[in-house]
Amino acid sequence: MSIADRTTIAEIAKLAGVSVPTVSKVINGKPGVSNAKRLTITQLLHEHEYEPRRSAPTGVIAVVFGELSSPWSLALVSALERVAFDNDMGMLLTVMRPGTGEWVDMLGGKNVDGVIFAAVEVAPSDQERFRQLELPTVLVDPRTLPDSGTVTVGVTHWRGARAATDHLVDLGHQRIAMISGPRHLLFSQARVDGYRAALRSADIVVPEDYIVATEYGFAAGREAALDLLKRTPRPTAIFAASDEQALGIYEAARLSGLRIPADVSVVGFNDVPIAEWASPPLTTVREPIFDTAREAIRLLRVEMAEAGEAVAVELVTDLIIRESTAAPTL
Amino acid sequence: MSIADRTTIAEIAKLAGVSVPTVSKVINGKPGVSNAKRLTITQLLHEHEYEPRRSAPTGVIAVVFGELSSPWSLALVSALERVAFDNDMGMLLTVMRPGTGEWVDMLGGKNVDGVIFAAVEVAPSDQERFRQLELPTVLVDPRTLPDSGTVTVGVTHWRGARAATDHLVDLGHQRIAMISGPRHLLFSQARVDGYRAALRSADIVVPEDYIVATEYGFAAGREAALDLLKRTPRPTAIFAASDEQALGIYEAARLSGLRIPADVSVVGFNDVPIAEWASPPLTTVREPIFDTAREAIRLLRVEMAEAGEAVAVELVTDLIIRESTAAPTL
Repeated sequence: MSIADRTTIAEIAKLAGVSVPTVSKVINGKPGVSNAKRLTITQLLHEHEYEPRRSAPTGVIAVVFGELSSPWSLALVSALERVAFDNDMGMLLTVMRPGTGEWVDMLGGKNVDGVIFAAVEVAPSDQERFRQLELPTVLVDPRTLPDSGTVTVGVTHWRGARAATDHLVDLGHQRIAMISGPRHLLFSQARVDGYRAALRSADIVVPEDYIVATEYGFAAGREAALDLLKRTPRPTAIFAASDEQALGIYEAARLSGLRIPADVSVVGFNDVPIAEWASPPLTTVREPIFDTAREAIRLLRVEMAEAGEAVAVELVTDLIIRESTAAPTL
Repeated sequence: MSIADRTTIAEIAKLAGVSVPTVSKVINGKPGVSNAKRLTITQLLHEHEYEPRRSAPTGVIAVVFGELSSPWSLALVSALERVAFDNDMGMLLTVMRPGTGEWVDMLGGKNVDGVIFAAVEVAPSDQERFRQLELPTVLVDPRTLPDSGTVTVGVTHWRGARAATDHLVDLGHQRIAMISGPRHLLFSQARVDGYRAALRSADIVVPEDYIVATEYGFAAGREAALDLLKRTPRPTAIFAASDEQALGIYEAARLSGLRIPADVSVVGFNDVPIAEWASPPLTTVREPIFDTAREAIRLLRVEMAEAGEAVAVELVTDLIIRESTAAPTL
């Protein structure tokens, strides 16, 4: 069966002027579609000799990451492996090479039953090619706003950032800076907005340059913090949008001759293992990474069994207070 | 084709009183087997109606880890993914659940072309079951001495440990302690012996309790270091057998009011990303993890193409000097 020659659900949906899930509902005899639309879609399916994918399930799912170097990706890999194994599924792990199409060809050639994307953005040139595979798909923490027909799992980025900043406010900090992730990423925006909301609610105004948008890694965090710690007046607390950035603040503090938390309080985001391994142990926002994996695979199984409804699940974060935060010494 | 009913190469080897590679050579028409043995083996293959595995290659290999929580495992996962992708192979990732047989059934059910084991020990009850799958296999850093017929890839654990300790000796340290991994692991033993060799060659004698064998993780490193830093006289340097343990020493030093490297020098082992993210950045022994992945997959491909010879490749480590080591302040 050649993938290129087949009419896809996406094409039928386009011709009928409806969404992909609507076409799926008709194919699978599910309710929730008007009779008129159902008739149109059925006619189109017939005219275009639509044939559903027939390959037998292989018991293998693919997980596609944007990168495998961040502690967050690696924690999620480990969680997904455990949940997949518990569901008798093999897990094919790969990294997206955006715009090359190669990763799509790889998935197409390996007979997988479904795909989980983790913190990636599918390049437009890859999107159409991937859609033709007609694989059940779940997005974990998409980088950009997904199509309305998509199943997504994420965490409460806004609430997590708000709780982190509230904690610093409660300790008595006023000069609270933030190192954020790249501005175009959805979860970066949510985290900055949570931080701003906490300050607003406490009537705290900080200079606009107290918010530094940079990459999520260690070196970016260190450079941003070296800069922030030179400001006059100096921030007494910094909220980092990732634990890796937070470790960068630790190193910047050491290089600046400042102690954590005596001279500067630090809060991270993720609660990956390095947060506990930091010295002093890092106060951070815990993302429920194992629950994220479990929910992603549950929703993928639902989609594999029947045409899924579009849902967006947000799992709740939790503030973990360790030793990197304290009241400011004024 | 039922796996249970087939005569395996291993059974033929047992009956003929030869090794598995020898039987493979006969099956594949390779040289290096005496005529007498070749005849015996050919007769046995005929009598037992041996049939080679016939399934077409799937382009998927499995990698089996002992755990997916250590930074070393995660760095190797990332490297293997890259090399597998560059070789047009999909990578099925799983964790061994020793003694359950489940992981073997999983591999048996997923049509993989070969298996890489990373730092695992195959339980005797799983071994026979795995052997029946007759899959080409490469072991990366086996935990215990492998059978003579095995293909292994590792690094120069002994030399790495020796270089780390030599570095501390060269700085002028005499009271050098070591936090080692569990004693029964092959690479733990090699690292301790490298440390001992360096001390011996410098005519340095340390108390026997300067060597603490414990787990490779952060908490184990912290506890061991808290204990070591209480000794009188106190060690002026500690060599840890993993970067994670080394971070534990950082936290123990902080809790003991000691500075790194002014009061105590620290060297790690692995050179995973956390070594660079430590504050101060950690001096450590670099394992060539990417080269390890490349070599493992190269050797697996050789085995997939023909019955492989047993080889043991050791890749060379490198000492990376950062800021956690200095001359002792006496």
